[in-house]
Amino acid sequence: MFEAKFQSFADASSSHDSAARLAALRAELARQTLDGFLLPRADAHQNEYVPRNAERLAWLTGFTGSAGFAVILQKEAALFVDGRYVLQAPQEIDGRLFASIDIAETAPAQWLAAHAREGARIGYDPWVHTSGQIERFAKALESKKIELVALDANPIDALWTDRPAEPMGAIVVHPPRYAGAAAAAKIKTLRAGLNGADAALMSDPHAICWAFNIRGSDVAHTPIALCFALLPKEGAPALYADDAKLDQKTRAALEKFLTLRAPSGLLGDLAQAGRRGETILFDAATAPVKLVETLREAGGKPRVADDPASLPKAVKNKTELAGAREAHIRDGAALTRFLAWFSETAPKGGLTEITAAEALETFRRETGALRDISFPTISAFGAHAAIPHYRVTEKSNLRIGKGVYLVDSGAQYLDGTTDVTRTVCVGRASRQLRDHFTRVLKGHIAIARAVFPKGATGAQLDGFARRFLWEAGLDFDHGVGHGVGSYLSVHEGPQRISRVGVTPLRPGMILSNEPGYYRAGEYGIRLENLVIVERRDIAGAEREMYGFETITLAPFDLACVEPKLMSPEESAWLNAYHAQVRKTLSPLVDARTKKWLREATRAI
Amino acid sequence: MFEAKFQSFADASSSHDSAARLAALRAELARQTLDGFLLPRADAHQNEYVPRNAERLAWLTGFTGSAGFAVILQKEAALFVDGRYVLQAPQEIDGRLFASIDIAETAPAQWLAAHAREGARIGYDPWVHTSGQIERFAKALESKKIELVALDANPIDALWTDRPAEPMGAIVVHPPRYAGAAAAAKIKTLRAGLNGADAALMSDPHAICWAFNIRGSDVAHTPIALCFALLPKEGAPALYADDAKLDQKTRAALEKFLTLRAPSGLLGDLAQAGRRGETILFDAATAPVKLVETLREAGGKPRVADDPASLPKAVKNKTELAGAREAHIRDGAALTRFLAWFSETAPKGGLTEITAAEALETFRRETGALRDISFPTISAFGAHAAIPHYRVTEKSNLRIGKGVYLVDSGAQYLDGTTDVTRTVCVGRASRQLRDHFTRVLKGHIAIARAVFPKGATGAQLDGFARRFLWEAGLDFDHGVGHGVGSYLSVHEGPQRISRVGVTPLRPGMILSNEPGYYRAGEYGIRLENLVIVERRDIAGAEREMYGFETITLAPFDLACVEPKLMSPEESAWLNAYHAQVRKTLSPLVDARTKKWLREATRAI
Repeated sequence: MFEAKFQSFADASSSHDSAARLAALRAELARQTLDGFLLPRADAHQNEYVPRNAERLAWLTGFTGSAGFAVILQKEAALFVDGRYVLQAPQEIDGRLFASIDIAETAPAQWLAAHAREGARIGYDPWVHTSGQIERFAKALESKKIELVALDANPIDALWTDRPAEPMGAIVVHPPRYAGAAAAAKIKTLRAGLNGADAALMSDPHAICWAFNIRGSDVAHTPIALCFALLPKEGAPALYADDAKLDQKTRAALEKFLTLRAPSGLLGDLAQAGRRGETILFDAATAPVKLVETLREAGGKPRVADDPASLPKAVKNKTELAGAREAHIRDGAALTRFLAWFSETAPKGGLTEITAAEALETFRRETGALRDISFPTISAFGAHAAIPHYRVTEKSNLRIGKGVYLVDSGAQYLDGTTDVTRTVCVGRASRQLRDHFTRVLKGHIAIARAVFPKGATGAQLDGFARRFLWEAGLDFDHGVGHGVGSYLSVHEGPQRISRVGVTPLRPGMILSNEPGYYRAGEYGIRLENLVIVERRDIAGAEREMYGFETITLAPFDLACVEPKLMSPEESAWLNAYHAQVRKTLSPLVDARTKKWLREATRAI
Repeated sequence: MFEAKFQSFADASSSHDSAARLAALRAELARQTLDGFLLPRADAHQNEYVPRNAERLAWLTGFTGSAGFAVILQKEAALFVDGRYVLQAPQEIDGRLFASIDIAETAPAQWLAAHAREGARIGYDPWVHTSGQIERFAKALESKKIELVALDANPIDALWTDRPAEPMGAIVVHPPRYAGAAAAAKIKTLRAGLNGADAALMSDPHAICWAFNIRGSDVAHTPIALCFALLPKEGAPALYADDAKLDQKTRAALEKFLTLRAPSGLLGDLAQAGRRGETILFDAATAPVKLVETLREAGGKPRVADDPASLPKAVKNKTELAGAREAHIRDGAALTRFLAWFSETAPKGGLTEITAAEALETFRRETGALRDISFPTISAFGAHAAIPHYRVTEKSNLRIGKGVYLVDSGAQYLDGTTDVTRTVCVGRASRQLRDHFTRVLKGHIAIARAVFPKGATGAQLDGFARRFLWEAGLDFDHGVGHGVGSYLSVHEGPQRISRVGVTPLRPGMILSNEPGYYRAGEYGIRLENLVIVERRDIAGAEREMYGFETITLAPFDLACVEPKLMSPEESAWLNAYHAQVRKTLSPLVDARTKKWLREATRAI
């Protein structure tokens, strides 16, 4: 009945061949008179979702997390992971080959400085590190005179005999009815951000797809094309993308405003710009050090800074915002069908985390508009819900019984990207759960209701979402909100609501509002809607004031709410939100769901 | 009757000689084949209060603000100031000689890149710039091939014929009953922060005074000795301070744990360390580029980072905290005497901003413990109160009539530094004023009552203080709180409550809590207490929880409070605070003040 087409629950991890592969790698390093090698989980664009041929870290170690970094020496090797993966990593890798280290306790550079011999030569692939990353390594290794050696080829690639081919997903035009602005206008905006540089080398595929109104299908869950671009201060920009990704029609459409170049031409073009003494802007977050150094070595002046597309892309135009609202109505109807179905089915037993995820994806596919899910669904029962980034596999899959179920999921539609979390209770909610749930909800509502002036940052709002947890001595260890793209990445900068959110919020930015609470070994709660920063008229205001428009539409589980803990203003917000959910979605769902929705959105 | 001994209200500014001085400087630059010169308002320690012989910017331009930067070219010159001084600067300088520029709109480096010729040679005094400042300049000037030239001597000094001598304030031991920890223990802590470096060059006099338990009197309002120190990983630290500052007894006490060196020996010692190939830590915020480059040129490895004393100094020990509480009781009694006197005297007319400031300083001196005021008193009536950093002079001095009076002041006592702001109304408070005042007070109380976990930053709390203003479309343009030293600087890092407050708050840190609201041309409100971060026990807490202990003691003007806008919790906080003020201070003040205090601290 239900089926997942955009995600797999297989245990992809295998450290079966790690020993042989590690030995082969060490032999190759020795042949090149290298004492070690740096191996990040990264592609040439620092993408969150990397193509399969860039999964070198998983190939060598068996670790399948979305962030990790290995350092291989001749006698030792270590895998560094963050808090999300400190439990998972040791289970996936062979502990006799790799030490698993919490990156917050020991950084790879620190470990390398302590474990490599004085004067060691450590190789790295300059395509998968940024210049900032390599500078920080160099600084930490300076006092031990350890030399970092940029390699011409990644030594893994020669050993990885069945390495998948580079993805050749088709590039398509993202039409004006979704993009809302012509590429020409965006290019003009970007040029204003050159700040005197001769050109910008664009290395973030999200930025390139946004700027040129294209989308691709090279990686999972994010409709980007892996490519680079060079935007000169005058004349046509160059897009470095493989010919195989473009059909005749797309090519013709793009060649109206840009020049198509083979990816193999990029280094030569940068060297040429360098010989002309040009200053070129590189994106600090994604530009491979290979590109930066190619320019520098040819005599050019690299300027590594923020991507000039980052902020314009984050501020959505009217068309993108209208699309986001449409996408959220569609997505809300699908999620509400799921929640109604779940509320009816789960108490009977027989559901698992995987079947639930399959059902949700199916309801979304049945909208007829689903292009992909925006990330692997977090379908988590009981103690699994306490793991903020839980990913269900055949091995971990739990049967859903009485207790807390958390589902964090999202979709990619042509008109928008969604990301929503609901936490529901199967059976009766305990008093303690209601207390915790209500504190999280009060924090969610504090963000939803916040008004703030132009210039205010996400950091200044972050505490609003935590206050009620803090008052009880509780907290959660992730940000309150991240930026979201428009049929692009579900995690987008620079906007964010977190202690490190230094970017002023601007009207048109889309962010998540997702406070949580996690009780290790017992349950987890997260309540997430997406919001749009909007202008607010306030009588007597002396500042330009903003607030959030909540665009996600789905009921919160009232069985988990303790009304006594809610202020009148908070209850009013919840009732108004639920009324809007009911009014908007009722016409879009089947009679059974509609009936359930009426009850689920009753006023408290 | 009243008198100011620690501050002057004279108009120090004069641009009378600017034209001649500027011409002489330009001639000297030409002689050295320089096209321009960088002139910051800075000494060799990046101090907030600089010695008189470092007031080169005021000497040349007439500008007397506490922060400013001039760029002098042969045909043009510009003075860059921040928002605090955009109105004051043009009044003080000769606009025909210097353009006055808002530094937020155009940075000096930007202006220089646009106005200097390609290949220009620009001189600077490497003692009054940090390496980071010069690096940023160099980066901005790179594309125009403008060369920055470190000069052997500051060209102003040769022209400034009546330049004051270097201050030779006595260095005294800050005894254990105030310092609470032996220098030996502090040195051990600092060594743990060397992170593998061979030594730390200390350039922040506050850090040195804290580390070695000494105080000085070289600059106004902050009891520091201008000096440098070199802390090696082993062996005695070296203190570079002029012999004339030390008497026999102090010298003997210090030589028990450190080596006294003449300031003139510092460059030689750094060069020697350089020749040994040593890695030396420099404070990014204060170390002159001269020192960093001296080490580098001799073959050493400078590492420019955070001062290892910065965080340990910010976290006060029990003795310092007990001292701070004592100081605040003493200071609160003096301020309360002032407020009672003001409330009786002001309505009769005849008071001015200066007489009020003189009275307050006198009440503080009458405690018998006042060493200095901690900054020039902001004594501001009416529209002047809307200028957050207003400084009264004979010229600006207003007669105090009906309206709002704001007084922001502080004291230096051996046991602690204070900083407090009260806003009071002479005559009836308008409804609008009560609304604004109460919103500021609610923000103040939100900070005072906040509870937050270990790891929380000031940025996460900042919004708590602004929320009630934001709801009315209002805000204020300064941080909510800054760190405060222990008989040291009234402005201390790294702790702060502001959108850029990234340092986690720790028990023992002292901060200000000072939200405000400013209505240009009409009035200003600021309500400031100092607080100590303290541990909090919360039943069921899963985190280590903190809150603030308010230590400033003085009534808030209840005539400005609108009780209807206060929540029961807020009123309860205010009443409890006022009860504590009354109980603590009543025994310490005269009968008349005591009677006034009873009424001023009544419950609402």
